[in-house]
Amino acid sequence: MEKLTHTECTTQLLPIRDAIEVISGKWKLQIIVSISSGNSHFREIERSIPKLSSKVLAKELKDLEANRLVKRTVFESLPVSVEYTLLPHAESLQPVIDSLRHWGTLHRKEIMGA
Amino acid sequence: MEKLTHTECTTQLLPIRDAIEVISGKWKLQIIVSISSGNSHFREIERSIPKLSSKVLAKELKDLEANRLVKRTVFESLPVSVEYTLLPHAESLQPVIDSLRHWGTLHRKEIMGA
Repeated sequence: MEKLTHTECTTQLLPIRDAIEVISGKWKLQIIVSISSGNSHFREIERSIPKLSSKVLAKELKDLEANRLVKRTVFESLPVSVEYTLLPHAESLQPVIDSLRHWGTLHRKEIMGA
Repeated sequence: MEKLTHTECTTQLLPIRDAIEVISGKWKLQIIVSISSGNSHFREIERSIPKLSSKVLAKELKDLEANRLVKRTVFESLPVSVEYTLLPHAESLQPVIDSLRHWGTLHRKEIMGA
């Protein structure tokens, strides 16, 4: 591969930066995995992820909504019930999640000295 | 997929958390891509990545060394020259980088409303 100049590097890296910006941080992918496994209520999602606080979960869910990954539906029942589901766009993240999971396993072996 | 309990979720998510911890932040993957494209000197890497400061680059390179992704070699020439190269472990990140690049492109289209 040729050495990249500043401009070429920017162009090549832009989609990677976009992706990292959306999924980075400790929680977003974990929340997506939790919802995709069937947790749809706030408390269910919260309970499924160790060390995740309500405050942070609320913020992360809003970010995920803004990025069209998660849909929040309010049911006018008594009491009102709120459900979170994944939008189709979140399903396109599956190859990213799979590749991260695979590499994370490799990395643990590498660092632990398997 | 069955709803994940707290423990199952932790087990499933552990490798993903590991991976995200190593590559998250704005810079690490960009530095890896830059080195893989042939930039091996500190200043070359710095110049290839917009808005990356020397101080941050130095810190990130140290993290990447600690995670066995980057190797720092000092040549006893005059003046002393230092080269950064990728270790084989970094090559195993290629599928992650590819999937992020692909998804980042999809995401931009989704948000821009292609």
